Amino acid sequence: MVRRSGRRPGNQDTRQDILAAAREVFAEKGFDKASIRAIATAAEVDPALVHHYFGTKEKLFLESMEVPVNPAELVPKALAGPREEAGERLTRLVLSVWDSPAGAAAVAMLRSAMSNDWTARLLREFIVTQVLRRAITELDMPRDEAPMRASLLATQIGGLAVVRYVLKVEPVASADPEILVRAIAPTVQRYLTGEIT
Amino acid sequence: MVRRSGRRPGNQDTRQDILAAAREVFAEKGFDKASIRAIATAAEVDPALVHHYFGTKEKLFLESMEVPVNPAELVPKALAGPREEAGERLTRLVLSVWDSPAGAAAVAMLRSAMSNDWTARLLREFIVTQVLRRAITELDMPRDEAPMRASLLATQIGGLAVVRYVLKVEPVASADPEILVRAIAPTVQRYLTGEIT
Repeated sequence: MVRRSGRRPGNQDTRQDILAAAREVFAEKGFDKASIRAIATAAEVDPALVHHYFGTKEKLFLESMEVPVNPAELVPKALAGPREEAGERLTRLVLSVWDSPAGAAAVAMLRSAMSNDWTARLLREFIVTQVLRRAITELDMPRDEAPMRASLLATQIGGLAVVRYVLKVEPVASADPEILVRAIAPTVQRYLTGEIT
Repeated sequence: MVRRSGRRPGNQDTRQDILAAAREVFAEKGFDKASIRAIATAAEVDPALVHHYFGTKEKLFLESMEVPVNPAELVPKALAGPREEAGERLTRLVLSVWDSPAGAAAVAMLRSAMSNDWTARLLREFIVTQVLRRAITELDMPRDEAPMRASLLATQIGGLAVVRYVLKVEPVASADPEILVRAIAPTVQRYLTGEIT
């Protein structure tokens, strides 16, 4: 296929403009307060076009962050089943996503979030609204404890990512996933359902 | 005091040259394999001068990383006392250092290590040789378990730093340190002395 010029087709440009505007608005206002309307305004397009290209606000958010997996499917799947094994299943899921080819994008995002406040805000919005909030719903956590449990969970899961994939401290960096599941799942389980005060 | 030109006095330049060379050699070879001689060669000075300015290799390492506290004093202090309270004391120590003005430097280092492999190697050397190795000695851990325990410890302590100071996920970001000690110390204790397999 030969194009007349180096310029991408118009609708591709529009898509990219919308995604760039979405990243900006989500980082600035947070996921909950960002609206399709505000994103459309920032991209100088009609809101209907945003809906047409991306569907829901959530789908737009995931696309704008180039998330290679769908937390809406994965998190409930990991947490379904006996409550006392949720920590084990969640730890195993996280390792299987990160150890997969899709994991490289997640690690790149984490690296970037460390040195860039804007990316940090996007990542925090992703962790809170797409992962932790779903975990809270799935496990039917008491509402007053949920935010603390969720952010404690983030300390252990985030720290595992940093040590295994970024700093590469051995033996965690090269350990078989099941060894890490046995070591770390009890922590994840306690943050999800155990004693934390 | 008025100087003739903008150039710093000769010995200041030499100190800075040695520190720059030290960062390079420590990152490349790791703490254990880096020698004062190799650092002196990289800085194009006599090894005796390196000893004269910085004393031991360890002191040179801490100065080259601009570490504002001395792990050789802090870690044994935190881990002295009843073994079953080591997790609590270590968690409290870590939070008190990071919450202090000195903590800003540690957070800057962590941020930088995420986006820069060279800084990541330096930070890993610092964590392993200055913090984890001392913790292993103080607690007299079984030698075959020590590396895994130490790097698991790094996942929880590192993750706490990332969530509280870099990503700033609430409520962990603003929580009173003692609330975090109660929530996280049992994890630290388990990685230090409990069941991990």
